[in-house]
Amino acid sequence: MSEKIRINLKSDNEERKIEIKRDGNLLEALRENDVYIDAVCGGLGKCGKCRVFVDGKEYLACQIKVDEIRDNAIIEIPRDVDINLNSKNKAKILSESKIELEYDFSPIIKVVKVNLSKPKVNSKIADLDSLKNSLKDYLPISVDYELLSEIPKKIREFDWEFYALLGEEEKGNVLLGLYKERPEPLGVVVDIGTTTIVAQLIEISSKDIVMTISDTNRQVRFGEDVHSRMMYANEVLETSNCKDRYPLTTLVRAQINELVNDLLKGAKNQPIACIFVSGNTVMTQFLHGITTKYLMEEPWVPAATEFPVRFSNEFSIGCVNGRVPIYSSPCRSAYVGGDVISDIVASGMHRRNELSILIDVGTNGEVVLGNSDWLMCASTSAGPAFEGGEVKYGMRATEGAIERVRAKLVNNKVEFSISTIGNKPARGLCGSGMIELVAELFRLGIIDKAGNFSDTCQSVRKNNGEYEIPIIGDISIFDSDLKNIIRTKGALFAGIVTLLSSAGCKMDDVEKIYIAGGFGNYLDYRRGVLIGLLPDLPIEKFRYIGNGSIAGSRCMLLSKHARDDASKIVKSMENIELSYSNVFREEYNAALFLPHTDMGKFPNFERFMRELSEER
Amino acid sequence: MSEKIRINLKSDNEERKIEIKRDGNLLEALRENDVYIDAVCGGLGKCGKCRVFVDGKEYLACQIKVDEIRDNAIIEIPRDVDINLNSKNKAKILSESKIELEYDFSPIIKVVKVNLSKPKVNSKIADLDSLKNSLKDYLPISVDYELLSEIPKKIREFDWEFYALLGEEEKGNVLLGLYKERPEPLGVVVDIGTTTIVAQLIEISSKDIVMTISDTNRQVRFGEDVHSRMMYANEVLETSNCKDRYPLTTLVRAQINELVNDLLKGAKNQPIACIFVSGNTVMTQFLHGITTKYLMEEPWVPAATEFPVRFSNEFSIGCVNGRVPIYSSPCRSAYVGGDVISDIVASGMHRRNELSILIDVGTNGEVVLGNSDWLMCASTSAGPAFEGGEVKYGMRATEGAIERVRAKLVNNKVEFSISTIGNKPARGLCGSGMIELVAELFRLGIIDKAGNFSDTCQSVRKNNGEYEIPIIGDISIFDSDLKNIIRTKGALFAGIVTLLSSAGCKMDDVEKIYIAGGFGNYLDYRRGVLIGLLPDLPIEKFRYIGNGSIAGSRCMLLSKHARDDASKIVKSMENIELSYSNVFREEYNAALFLPHTDMGKFPNFERFMRELSEER
Repeated sequence: MSEKIRINLKSDNEERKIEIKRDGNLLEALRENDVYIDAVCGGLGKCGKCRVFVDGKEYLACQIKVDEIRDNAIIEIPRDVDINLNSKNKAKILSESKIELEYDFSPIIKVVKVNLSKPKVNSKIADLDSLKNSLKDYLPISVDYELLSEIPKKIREFDWEFYALLGEEEKGNVLLGLYKERPEPLGVVVDIGTTTIVAQLIEISSKDIVMTISDTNRQVRFGEDVHSRMMYANEVLETSNCKDRYPLTTLVRAQINELVNDLLKGAKNQPIACIFVSGNTVMTQFLHGITTKYLMEEPWVPAATEFPVRFSNEFSIGCVNGRVPIYSSPCRSAYVGGDVISDIVASGMHRRNELSILIDVGTNGEVVLGNSDWLMCASTSAGPAFEGGEVKYGMRATEGAIERVRAKLVNNKVEFSISTIGNKPARGLCGSGMIELVAELFRLGIIDKAGNFSDTCQSVRKNNGEYEIPIIGDISIFDSDLKNIIRTKGALFAGIVTLLSSAGCKMDDVEKIYIAGGFGNYLDYRRGVLIGLLPDLPIEKFRYIGNGSIAGSRCMLLSKHARDDASKIVKSMENIELSYSNVFREEYNAALFLPHTDMGKFPNFERFMRELSEER
Repeated sequence: MSEKIRINLKSDNEERKIEIKRDGNLLEALRENDVYIDAVCGGLGKCGKCRVFVDGKEYLACQIKVDEIRDNAIIEIPRDVDINLNSKNKAKILSESKIELEYDFSPIIKVVKVNLSKPKVNSKIADLDSLKNSLKDYLPISVDYELLSEIPKKIREFDWEFYALLGEEEKGNVLLGLYKERPEPLGVVVDIGTTTIVAQLIEISSKDIVMTISDTNRQVRFGEDVHSRMMYANEVLETSNCKDRYPLTTLVRAQINELVNDLLKGAKNQPIACIFVSGNTVMTQFLHGITTKYLMEEPWVPAATEFPVRFSNEFSIGCVNGRVPIYSSPCRSAYVGGDVISDIVASGMHRRNELSILIDVGTNGEVVLGNSDWLMCASTSAGPAFEGGEVKYGMRATEGAIERVRAKLVNNKVEFSISTIGNKPARGLCGSGMIELVAELFRLGIIDKAGNFSDTCQSVRKNNGEYEIPIIGDISIFDSDLKNIIRTKGALFAGIVTLLSSAGCKMDDVEKIYIAGGFGNYLDYRRGVLIGLLPDLPIEKFRYIGNGSIAGSRCMLLSKHARDDASKIVKSMENIELSYSNVFREEYNAALFLPHTDMGKFPNFERFMRELSEER
């Protein structure tokens, strides 16, 4: 019996033949062929996300053995299942930061013109000494042994005049290369989100964004949230005899390698000179190959706040020329990571006198409060609902995601009008779609304050013992989805209130609210207020900063001022552990309603209800 | 036909069966089996050093194809041929430095006790930050990514109290490991001589020398002197399509790996924490994998004076635990290298007011003149005669080498009485043996001032068109050997006179003469004066420092003061290019006699002649 079987794989109206190993289950076999089907539960058969049709019959890919599949079987992946077929599904991310660079230009990568005097018998100096003397503003300078071996030859080939490419290190700089002509170095900034990894190519001298791409974080198959991934990582590290004791590290490095490789297409022979990474603390420690065990245990201590500069070769990122430095945005605590520090840097809230709030609606939901004098932060563990997790037809903001929802009641039945990203056939709901959907259902009285479906609406139907409302095609919103969305928005709102309370401030004192996250651009903020996700403050106080993690990384790549700010922020910002806060517990319970138990916090609620109804 | 043949290999009365590849010549085939026969010419059939007997018939191993050898042939390696059969031939070096450490104890490797406060929910700090705070006297501290990944686990296992092992870097330190119990780190110092590599294991805290071993530098097969090796290296680098473009680099790193591995036997579970290397500039650049092309071309510019700290893994030195730093003694110029800087450090001449001369009688023959105010140096390109090169029965100072020679004339024939190192059967002449032999032959009138054999001595016979005097067994001294020895001693003496002349000093101003080199311990300095190798100064001015390269490396390993001194020396010492010096050219010609054309430079000549004759 052959060790492999052939299958016909159908997805998105495409079909291709691949060979898969007879071992193990179909989910694993497909992954070995670079077909990544998201399985939130890590292949335990619990999440039901990896549905496939084998010769027309539905299975969970993680539950069917390849052995049970006939040769030449037709395997169909339904349209609503999230897959990642090679790089095919990598979409341009759809929200670009609106933040302009407020910092001075002092990039982490420098190009320096060098003019050496040609040695003579009676006045000579060793090549490296001569080079270092000419770069004395950048000392100490470290030189990789491979590069050092080329220096004598290169400086003579270049006839003692050339350009040196330098990268910042903790002290001094690392020499990255010598060039006859002035190089135009590129930097790659990477946001390692728990759910999505975004990578962006920057031309350093012009500050131009050359290209942005994104991809589902492949670690998703080991759990949708950071906690289940840490559990898995720890289990492998402590009990398994696998050769690779850091599989999540290997995975994220390989994925960054692949993304950088894709970005290389935009590089036009310019050298990629560095990679600057922001991620939450768990993602950052996975990247650096550090156990996350102690992030799970009280008192939740991170391995580092400022992570050492690493090099591409150490992380098996081989797609760049030679050996380029990998910088990491610093992390404040176990659950307020480098992505939030980047958000703050991008927002500039730490440089202004006015009291500001920053909300990062990512998988964890972090909240920051403060101004140029002080900052405090907390992670709300809000959950991944707005990024597509814990919601049956949830998905991230890529093509085919419903991003806008309008609804009306006709004869006690809901009629939806939706729009999707890229105007593609609807595949699911992204964060903004969910907020709009819940706001519309609530506005129309189809769900009540507690998120329960109304008895009277005829669109509500029972499916597998649960209530749902169909939206379009197969896509529905379920009772349990609503509860998850409410929990998520409740945690975020409670986080805001708790920080205000800790600081002795009132909501009205807040002069700016920065919202970071993939959905920011599509959201009508009134609908966010209506469901109690956003505080009810005047619209002019809101600023969408889009992917603040990427924008902040870009600031740090381009400005020493921004890097110094980040370093100061992690040293001075107060971190509040919400799990120990009674205020948070009470506020969370109070926020598990639409919009809130305390309607006094939402003075414009009625006006927004009216306005939105009149807008149709 | 099989791709391999079996041979019976005989050497030193031992016999073993090995299989060798049918490809290429016997010299190469034996090398692939770790049997290194020294071939000074690099296998060109010119030096005649690689003599072997195949089934009783004599061949040059480099000139016979394996294809011409029958299966099960008996291959005999004559006793006088230098081989290196695995580690079998590695001998304890026989001269140990007489220098006591004059420096304060501030080793390059530090053990620091660390006591961290255990983090609590309300007072916690990231692990690495906490560790760095406790090591604030040693900042900046770099941490390898593999070590960083272990830190969180280790500090908890060690219950927040442990020892950190640190290694000095250009700025700050590198963290090398964490230990529950105080470690007793070891350092390895290595002298990469052109002819011999010496490695020594040092227990850092006690400054004890645990073990010393040495081995022929395997690069010898690519040429005996640095110049032919550089030519070879450059040819490979520029024209060959070999996979390994730096074969001499690979070879020296592999040999250091092997030597360190042998030293590990003396380590008793103590961590080897660093390797400190001294070598001439060519050897140092080979080690670092840097092209030596520009050391051969005017104006002879080295790649660096102070070489960056490297790590064992970068140099494929895998025998140590983890990743340990490799330090290099700095080099002054293309031909005054780290070995000479180490000599100076070991001698302490740079710390004293008195005018001193240092002579390193290695393969190149370097000379240093100066005191605590100034230093000048030169390389004389003396040649490898005293290390066994360019002399037919020359060998390095290992077992079986004739180190002491007394002669008398009986009926116009010479009778020799000799002693060998280790009292083993004589295999050849080492440096001290040559000096004593030439002095004795000269004293007895068997050779004249120009080094020509006397017509009247009946021991002189003709062999292959050349005159020789047999000494013992097959071992003879040839006319051409005498000329080479005289050229070598002449270059060294001329170097001394040239430096004195450049500095405007007289020989009598010199208050100390330090002699570094493998032969120092056996030499009667009067015989050195008699042949005009050493200046004719009172005996109390002479100091033998033995292997100053090893001793100086040990000083630098153990004392920051010594490291700082070395750094200052390379920055301030004047380097004289003798090839441009008319004084040197004249002095060299004048010194090609025994002892010299200017007998006024040797006032004690007659007294020494008399004393030595009376001593018999």
